[in-house]
This record gives sequence, structure tokens and C-alpha cells, in this order.
Amino acid sequence: MEAGQQMYDLATRLYPICRSITGDGVRQTLRILKEYIPELTVQEVPSGSKVFDWTVPKEWNIRDAYIEDEAGHRVLDFADQNLHVMGYSLPMDEWLELDELKEIIYTQPDQPEVIPYVTSYYKERRGFCMSQVAKDALQPGKYHCVIDSELKDGHLTYGEAVIPGESKREILLSTYICHPSMANNECSGPALSTYLAKWVREHDHKYTYRFIFIPETIGSITYLSRNLPHLKEHLEAGFILTCVGDNRAYSHVSSRYGNNTADVTLRNVLQFQHPDYAEYSFLERGSDERQFCAPGVDLPVCTFSRTLFHKYPEYHTSADDLTVISPEGLQGSFDVLTQCFRILEHNHKYRINVFCEPQLGPRGLYPSISQKGAALTDEVRKITDFIAYADGRNSLIDISNRIHFPAVELVDTVEKLMAAGLLEIVE
Amino acid sequence: MEAGQQMYDLATRLYPICRSITGDGVRQTLRILKEYIPELTVQEVPSGSKVFDWTVPKEWNIRDAYIEDEAGHRVLDFADQNLHVMGYSLPMDEWLELDELKEIIYTQPDQPEVIPYVTSYYKERRGFCMSQVAKDALQPGKYHCVIDSELKDGHLTYGEAVIPGESKREILLSTYICHPSMANNECSGPALSTYLAKWVREHDHKYTYRFIFIPETIGSITYLSRNLPHLKEHLEAGFILTCVGDNRAYSHVSSRYGNNTADVTLRNVLQFQHPDYAEYSFLERGSDERQFCAPGVDLPVCTFSRTLFHKYPEYHTSADDLTVISPEGLQGSFDVLTQCFRILEHNHKYRINVFCEPQLGPRGLYPSISQKGAALTDEVRKITDFIAYADGRNSLIDISNRIHFPAVELVDTVEKLMAAGLLEIVE
Amino acid sequence: MEAGQQMYDLATRLYPICRSITGDGVRQTLRILKEYIPELTVQEVPSGSKVFDWTVPKEWNIRDAYIEDEAGHRVLDFADQNLHVMGYSLPMDEWLELDELKEIIYTQPDQPEVIPYVTSYYKERRGFCMSQVAKDALQPGKYHCVIDSELKDGHLTYGEAVIPGESKREILLSTYICHPSMANNECSGPALSTYLAKWVREHDHKYTYRFIFIPETIGSITYLSRNLPHLKEHLEAGFILTCVGDNRAYSHVSSRYGNNTADVTLRNVLQFQHPDYAEYSFLERGSDERQFCAPGVDLPVCTFSRTLFHKYPEYHTSADDLTVISPEGLQGSFDVLTQCFRILEHNHKYRINVFCEPQLGPRGLYPSISQKGAALTDEVRKITDFIAYADGRNSLIDISNRIHFPAVELVDTVEKLMAAGLLEIVE
Repeated sequence: MEAGQQMYDLATRLYPICRSITGDGVRQTLRILKEYIPELTVQEVPSGSKVFDWTVPKEWNIRDAYIEDEAGHRVLDFADQNLHVMGYSLPMDEWLELDELKEIIYTQPDQPEVIPYVTSYYKERRGFCMSQVAKDALQPGKYHCVIDSELKDGHLTYGEAVIPGESKREILLSTYICHPSMANNECSGPALSTYLAKWVREHDHKYTYRFIFIPETIGSITYLSRNLPHLKEHLEAGFILTCVGDNRAYSHVSSRYGNNTADVTLRNVLQFQHPDYAEYSFLERGSDERQFCAPGVDLPVCTFSRTLFHKYPEYHTSADDLTVISPEGLQGSFDVLTQCFRILEHNHKYRINVFCEPQLGPRGLYPSISQKGAALTDEVRKITDFIAYADGRNSLIDISNRIHFPAVELVDTVEKLMAAGLLEIVE
Repeated sequence: MEAGQQMYDLATRLYPICRSITGDGVRQTLRILKEYIPELTVQEVPSGSKVFDWTVPKEWNIRDAYIEDEAGHRVLDFADQNLHVMGYSLPMDEWLELDELKEIIYTQPDQPEVIPYVTSYYKERRGFCMSQVAKDALQPGKYHCVIDSELKDGHLTYGEAVIPGESKREILLSTYICHPSMANNECSGPALSTYLAKWVREHDHKYTYRFIFIPETIGSITYLSRNLPHLKEHLEAGFILTCVGDNRAYSHVSSRYGNNTADVTLRNVLQFQHPDYAEYSFLERGSDERQFCAPGVDLPVCTFSRTLFHKYPEYHTSADDLTVISPEGLQGSFDVLTQCFRILEHNHKYRINVFCEPQLGPRGLYPSISQKGAALTDEVRKITDFIAYADGRNSLIDISNRIHFPAVELVDTVEKLMAAGLLEIVE
Repeated sequence: MEAGQQMYDLATRLYPICRSITGDGVRQTLRILKEYIPELTVQEVPSGSKVFDWTVPKEWNIRDAYIEDEAGHRVLDFADQNLHVMGYSLPMDEWLELDELKEIIYTQPDQPEVIPYVTSYYKERRGFCMSQVAKDALQPGKYHCVIDSELKDGHLTYGEAVIPGESKREILLSTYICHPSMANNECSGPALSTYLAKWVREHDHKYTYRFIFIPETIGSITYLSRNLPHLKEHLEAGFILTCVGDNRAYSHVSSRYGNNTADVTLRNVLQFQHPDYAEYSFLERGSDERQFCAPGVDLPVCTFSRTLFHKYPEYHTSADDLTVISPEGLQGSFDVLTQCFRILEHNHKYRINVFCEPQLGPRGLYPSISQKGAALTDEVRKITDFIAYADGRNSLIDISNRIHFPAVELVDTVEKLMAAGLLEIVE
């Protein structure tokens, strides 16, 4: 649980910062992450850059915002809660009548107590967000409406850290640094990814691990427009981490066809460890699997979440605060991903190198007395069943799925059979 | 419903004619159809012609038939109901005792009120058909039995109409003109096919459409013996239309392996429009799919019916009269087939021509404000889900089946994305 | 039932003999079998021979064994029941205190009335077996413990009989001659195999049939180490016969991937004849399918049993006596296997050699009168449905599975269509 608490502490540091898809909140976030990940580099992409079908937008920054009534009483204050301003809102400094004001106040009517998270990145608007209850309580009169924001050419900023292994094949972890003060979506993803980088650095690994911290959608499109050929050539598997801090569910959003290496690895871990996990098809996509798995991109990537976006009530509102996530929730995610890594590191195709069953008894792997019932311990079955499908056609995960033992538990079996000289890696 | 009523009126004109697999009833029927389909040509194939494993039989015609008792009272009269004579019955003019007569009277004992439809095309017999009730009521005595029929060398007659499109690839519609006075089986098929030809003529279409009006079994074998190489080369999909006028069910009899282009097209329409439709395997075949889908023939054809032959009580009896079919029943069939045509005309494989998701917002295809719930209208999902599988591997129907929107509704989506320059046809 | 009784009689002759994986009990058993199978040859493989990953062990023989108390009363006597001595027990002749004695007495505590079958082939031990009840009844005192056995270099012995057919392709039957006095496991297998050899000799057959009588595990490994290339080249299908004499169930243990020729043949027979049969995956293997289907060996073999090893309470105990098996039980197995042979002998891919349906009426294979219901007898459907899938892609078994008629019943259909000149064998 140590990692869980550390991840929670990091999420707590990230929570107050006002982030968007561009701007200083992103830079501040990456500066904090670099304290934990020395390999982290920061990339700046100019506004106006063409990225596939899209264009990098202007950079948005905000210093302050509030609404005051005629008595100077603040009915809304950005300093209290950065969700109070629509993301990418134009600046303003005007007195509006209540009716005029109400036209630019966004609420979540089906959740009247919460402030919704609203953005308008690609159409210039101005807007405030408040709870339906607060909006309804506004009294007639004039209001001084101030948004001290700035929308101008600048940069889109993202972070990247590569932890090399002996192989040029890569495992990718991608998460977001574009959300303002919401905890599960998305302080949990950067916190988890940061501690996974630490875990990788501290453990033997064959693969090169690449961690990216990007704004959602425009960030992944920007990243892919610069790195697609490299990823197509080198990527073994990748995981998008989003909403990974609560403790209510485990979820997998699969790729378009649902069977790439990332899908089968994550599915194997979740089916055995958390058999009641939620399996979502690509039709329920909503995160950067939309880009990483798009036609023509088709990277071996899927999305991991605890409770999925759209499926928990606090999602994209002010209720997604630090009470939604927990050390336990983050630790559960950490355990799933590190198991995925352990499986991927051993997910070869294996072949037993003798004809017929090997004689396991003298090697201490099979009982020397035969009496009914005696041969059927799980340890013995794990070995003999593994051998039965180690025919050079099946990967570790394939064998796990066939013989109904978790892939992560078969890593020991592989090591025993390797040590006994009975097993070969086929590819 | 206009087409429904017109088809019903045509079926009503065809109903009284005494048809068989050969003879003047067929010619009279085709003369009527030619009033509606100017392209219709009539083919005559001589008796004795070898057609694959079969031989075209003699031509059969009948002018009159009756049974009179000694008092001159007619207990059966062909003029009342042409089912009263076994199809292909030899002529006769004899006085028989009741016992002798009963040996050549066919009934349907499990439906004692109706006259069955009985034929003996390939073994020379003579026979009358009546209801079991009427047969049981016959009194002892002598009967004057007259069948004024003729069985001699002549021709097998069928009709064919080709409505050309810009492509030499063809859509085939096949139905029967060999049944005497039964409405659903088979005045409904020719009536539907006739109005489908009219619809094709009045709508843009890329494919060439071929309509054939043939006797069942020997007619399709004859037709295939003359046209198989052409059809093997040009046929995109074909539908056999039989029992298409009642209003109780929708049915699909699939081809031998159940997955040719006709199967998947018809199945897509029926699954979405009439989810309670009946899907029959080739093991329940009974119509000309037996020939069009036979080993070695293997054309991309399936059978469409409302209530399937053998599955409705009036089938092959005098009860299959004009009350069994209706304008609504025919219209339902018409709608299914014209939807199939519309799908087939657009059933290409498509590929989105940008990497990652295209930016749909500025094109007016995606909401410009992001707030939870906002992006999920069916119109938006239809577009984004279509794009997600437009990777060049999937046809319109494949995508429809994957994303759970009816293929016919995706034609608009295709047209919008084509207009936006985002989509390519792959083959 | 005649074969059933004869097989039971043979099992009864074999039952009293003390067999092990080597030794004179095996030789005596094979001498008896040779009375029934003139083609039987006996092979001797020296101890110490390397067979794949294993080594042929020393030969074990036993003349006598007993335990006497101080009064000379025998509390255990090998002459009563040869399971009383652990298979491959070292010799001994010692006086032991009760406590010492108990350490080398094996029981089956969950079945306290029975003597378990225990072996220690590959680790030198000494041991007696008795019921838990008898062990608990032993009184304090000294006991004279005698095992007059011998473990020394010798041979592993097995039998083989080849009944040639016109083809060099082979059907293999394998069963065990290594079990002491247990009836179902395994006097039933040799008895069944012997009478199957007789059946083959008395019936037309195209394939060559090979019957092997071997010790389990080390015997099949030995056999395969000498015959694998021949079997890889010639084997069409093989069946391991074990526990084939009781009358409680039918079982199939499938090969690793569950779809070799033996699997599909046996499955076809059992599904149609005994639809409540037990289908076991390779994960429930336990007999020589472990070797015949091992990676790299991969012969088209599966295992047939009545009630499977491990699944009946008498298994591997003194309770597996002649009351467990019956003439009926053996006859049921015999019928299943001879049906498998009949199917395999006709399991070609077939192609109808005319386009469209052939005209079956004049050939007496289809009714000459058409009236609803008339065409649907099973005999007619069997022929027309067979033809529908006789397209050169499907074997007899494939067609059977598609059209839902037992493959063995389609052999007649094949013969009728062959006689009519309508059918060709494709390969």
C-alpha cells in the first residue's frame, strides 16, 4: 500500500492546479512530475501547427474570474474552484443584467448541486459554470462579470519520459494533464503513471518503456502526428490510463477489434484477479483509444480505468474531488499494471523440447508415488498443463487462457522449466 | 401503401388463371406482366431439351374437367376451381364406379375442408382433387369422369426482363409463374417482382437488375442450364421471392453456408426492421434456392418470404386465396426489398482518409461545446462509429453489424462523409 | 450381445494375473491374447534403453508376499489380492514393530474398506497396501514382513498386431496390459481391443488396423520412441481404450485442440447415439493421450472410455473387480468403436457430379406425386440434404454434423448415390 499512499499524495499536489489543453497549468504540472521522473522532457508545439486533420489551437491562460453583484458581493469566484470558468472562455469585463448573465452560465441540471466541467476549445465563447441551485438563487439586478483570461498564439505542451530496456520494442503508458481540479479524471492517471515509471526503473525489464503526459484528443493527435512511424515500428503494447483512482470497479475499453496485445494482457489480468471487472467494447470508447486505435493508426493500445468515464456520477463535475480517489484505489490500478508488465516481459511463444511428456519426477516436479488423487495439486497441474500447450504456437497468455491459470502465475512455471532445460522460446 | 394496393390488384388479375410448369396459363400470365414491364421477353424451350440432369417435360394444357353422377349432377367442376384436377393429369372420359373413382381422388385428410394442390409432373397419372368432406359425401353409383387435358410435346415458357445500370454487375429477382389459383403461393411473387422492376426503373441505380418469371424447379434448372456462366460472372446478389403477400411474418431462407451477399443484406434489413423475423437455414429450403445455391451452382442468392411455405395452413390448398394476401403484406415485402437494393447500391468497403479522428466540429458534425452527455446523440454516434470501422476492411453491412445501426440508415452518413471529402471507396 | 459376453469372459481370464509395467504378468497376458489374435507379436525392450526423455526401468517380478503376526497368523496375503503389494516394491524379509510396519502400509483413507492401487516405479521403496479398516485393526506386536519380489535389469514387454488393409493409412487402437487385478482399469481395454481385431479381420476394410497392448506412460513413450515417424506418416486416426467395461456412461477425452480425425469421428458417434455422453477436454487427460497428443507428437488420437478414470469410485482400488464391468458395458463400447471404423472407412470428401439438384424421382429416390408433406420423410431428407452439402469441401462427418443425421447412417446414402452414378470422391 506504500505506493498507493504516495500516488495519493502526488494526486493531492496536482489537484489544485488549473489545467487546460494548453497553458501554464500544464507546464506547472509537468514541473512537479519531473521531480519524480528525472527522464521527463517537455515538448512545446506552436499554435497553428497542422497535426493530421487538426490544427494546434491558441494557448489559453487564466489569472482570475468572478461575478459580483451591485453590492460587491461575489456570487462566483474562480479562486474557489477553477471549474467556475468554461475552459477556453474568452476574457470579459462587463456589467450584465441577470437575464443576459444567465445565458452564459452553464449548469448540470440533472445534478443540481454540482458545478459541471464545460469547455469550448474550438469555437470562441465566453462562459461561467455553477451549480443549478446557485444559478436559480441569483437575484435580479446587474452583475459585474470578469474573466481575466487570455487566448493567443503560444504552444501546446506535453511531457515524455523514456526508460530504455535492452530491447527497442516498447511499452507505452499514456495519460492526461489537461483537466482542471478533478481528482479521478485526471489527477489519478499522472500519479499512477509516475509511480509505474519508478517501478520500471527499479525492476529488471527487457522492453523500453515510454510514458507520455499529454492533453486529451488534440494532445494525442499532436503526439501521433510526430511519432506514428516510430510507434508503428516499435510498440509492443500500450495502455491509456484514465480514471484510475477510485475503488468501485475495474474496466477495460478494448481496441477496435478487441484482440491486440494490450487487450489480451489486460484482459488476462482482470479476468483472473477481478472477475467481475467491466469489459467495454470500442463502441463505448471515450478517451485517447479513439486516436491510438483509429483506422490507419491502429496501435496495440487499450484503455484501463477503475470506474469508467461516464459511468460514475462525479465524472466531469466538481464532485470529482479528492474523496473520489483513495490510496487503495490507486494501488489496485498499480497492481494491475505491474502484473501486465510482468506478463508482457515473458509473453513469448514457448516450445517444450522433448517428445512426449518429460520425466518430471526425478526433477522434483512430479510426485514419485502414484495413487489416485496424488498428482492433482495445482502446482503439478500448472506445470503439466503448461507443457501440454507449449508447442511453439501459443504465447504465455494463450496458454494461460487455455489452461485457466493466471498468466502472471505461470511466469514461475516458465522459469522452472527453463532452469530444467526443457523449454525454448520460439520467437 | 400505393404500391401495396397496386400489387394486390395485379395479384387479383393473375389469380384466376390455371397455370402449370408449362402451357398456355404461363403464356397468359406473362402477357399480363408485359403490360407492366415493357422490357419483358418470353422464352420458349422445347420439350425434350436436356437441362443438366433433367429433361424438359411435355407441355400440358387443360380446357375443362368435371365429374357427373348418373342424374347429370356435377359433383366436381374444374370451372369452379382449377385445383380440382391434379397438375399434369392425363385426359380421361369414362364412367367409373364410386370405388374406382375414389382411387383417383386426392384429398388433404388433415384439413378436410380444403382442396389440396397436387401434381404429378414426371409420372403419368390421372387424378382429381377435392375436399375430404366432399369425397366422403359421394354416394354409391356410377360417375362420368371427364378431364379434357392434353399432354404433348410443346414448350416450357418463362419470362425475363433486364433493366440495365451503369455496371455489368447484376441483382437478380426470381419468382414463379407455375402455380394455379393460389394467391400467396404464387400470385404474390410476380406482383411484387413487377413493382420492384418499376421501382428500379424510377430510381438511380448502378447495378443491372434482372427479373425472371419461371416455373419452379424445372424452370430454374432450365434457366440455369442456359445462363449459369453469365450469372457466375456477373451476379452480385439475388433474391427468390415466394409467399410474399401475407402479413403474418418475415422470413429468410439462407444459402447453403448462410453468408453470401444476398444473405447478409436481407438479414441486415430484417434484423433491424423486423427483429422477430424468422431465420431459416438451408436445411429448411423448399423453393428455388435449392437450385440457385446447389453445389457447383453456388450463386449469391437467398429466399425471401413473408410466412414461409409449409409454415402457414393455407399453403398448397384452395384456402390460399385472395384473403390470405393483402396490400399491407405486399407493401411490407416491397419495403424490405427496396431497402436491400439501397444497401447493395452502397455496400462498398470504405476507408477514412485521415489519421486519427477527423475534426468534425468545424464541419458541423460534432457539438462545439463539451459537457458530459452532449456528444452522445444518435446522429453523432452514427458518424463517429462509422468512421471508427471505416478502415478499408469493412463493407457498409459489416460496419452496420458492428456498430448496431441499420445499414440503410448509414447511407446518409456515407453521403455526408463523402461530401466532406473524408471517405474513400476501397474497391 | 454375443461379443459382449465373449469380451467379458476374456476379461475374466485376464483378471487374476499380477501385471505391472514390466515382468512376467505382462508376458502371460500377451500369451493369452495371442490365442485370440494370431497376428500378435511380442516386443522386448531392454532396461536402461533411452526412450525420449525417459529410461526404461528395471524389470519387476513378484512371487509372494505376506505379513504374519507373532502367532503366525497372516494379516495380509499377496495370494488373496495382488494389490496388497505396492507396484515395484523392493523385496524384504524382516520383523517390524507395529509402528514401523504402519509406515510402509498405504491405504485410501477416504474409502476405508478398499485396498488402494499404489506404485512407485521411479523411486525405490517398499510397501504394502491394505484397507484403512484392516490397518486400524492391527494389534501391537511384532510382524514378519515378507515381499518376495525382484527388481533387476530385464525388459519392458509389449504386444502389437497389424491387420493389413489395401491402404497403408492406419487406424490405431491402444490399450494397457500393466494393471494388476482391476477389471475396468484394465482388463476391459485388452478384451475390447481383442474383439475389435476379430471384427476387423471379419469385415471389409480399406485401412490397415494396428492394435497395441502396452504398459501405460513408459510403454507408450517407448512405443512412440520407436514408431513415431511411421505413425506421423501413416496414421489416419487412433483411439486409446481404457475403462471401457462398465455401463454407466460414455466418455471422450479429446486431443489438445479437440478436432483431429479421431475426435470428430468419436464425437459424431457419441453425440447421435448417446447424446448424454461426457465430453472431456485435454485438461482432464490422464491416460496415454498425454503421450500420443503431446506437443511434437501430435498424432490424430483421442481416448474413449465408458465412465472415465477418476470419475468412478472403484477406480484404482480393489473395488474395481469383475462386478464393475459387464457384457452389456463391453458391448456398448464395441458398438461405438465399430461404428467409428465404419465411418472412418467412408469419411471422404464427396462431390455431386451434376449442376442443380439431380432428378431423383425416376431413380426411385423421390416421391413422384407432389403434395404438401409428402417429400419430407427422413429417407428423402437424408438424400437431398446429403447432396446439398456434397460440394467437395465436406467430409462424411462434416456433412453429418451439418445436416443432423448420424454419419454412420449416411453410409447407405453414399452407397445409393454412388450406385446412381451421381457422387464422386474428391480426395
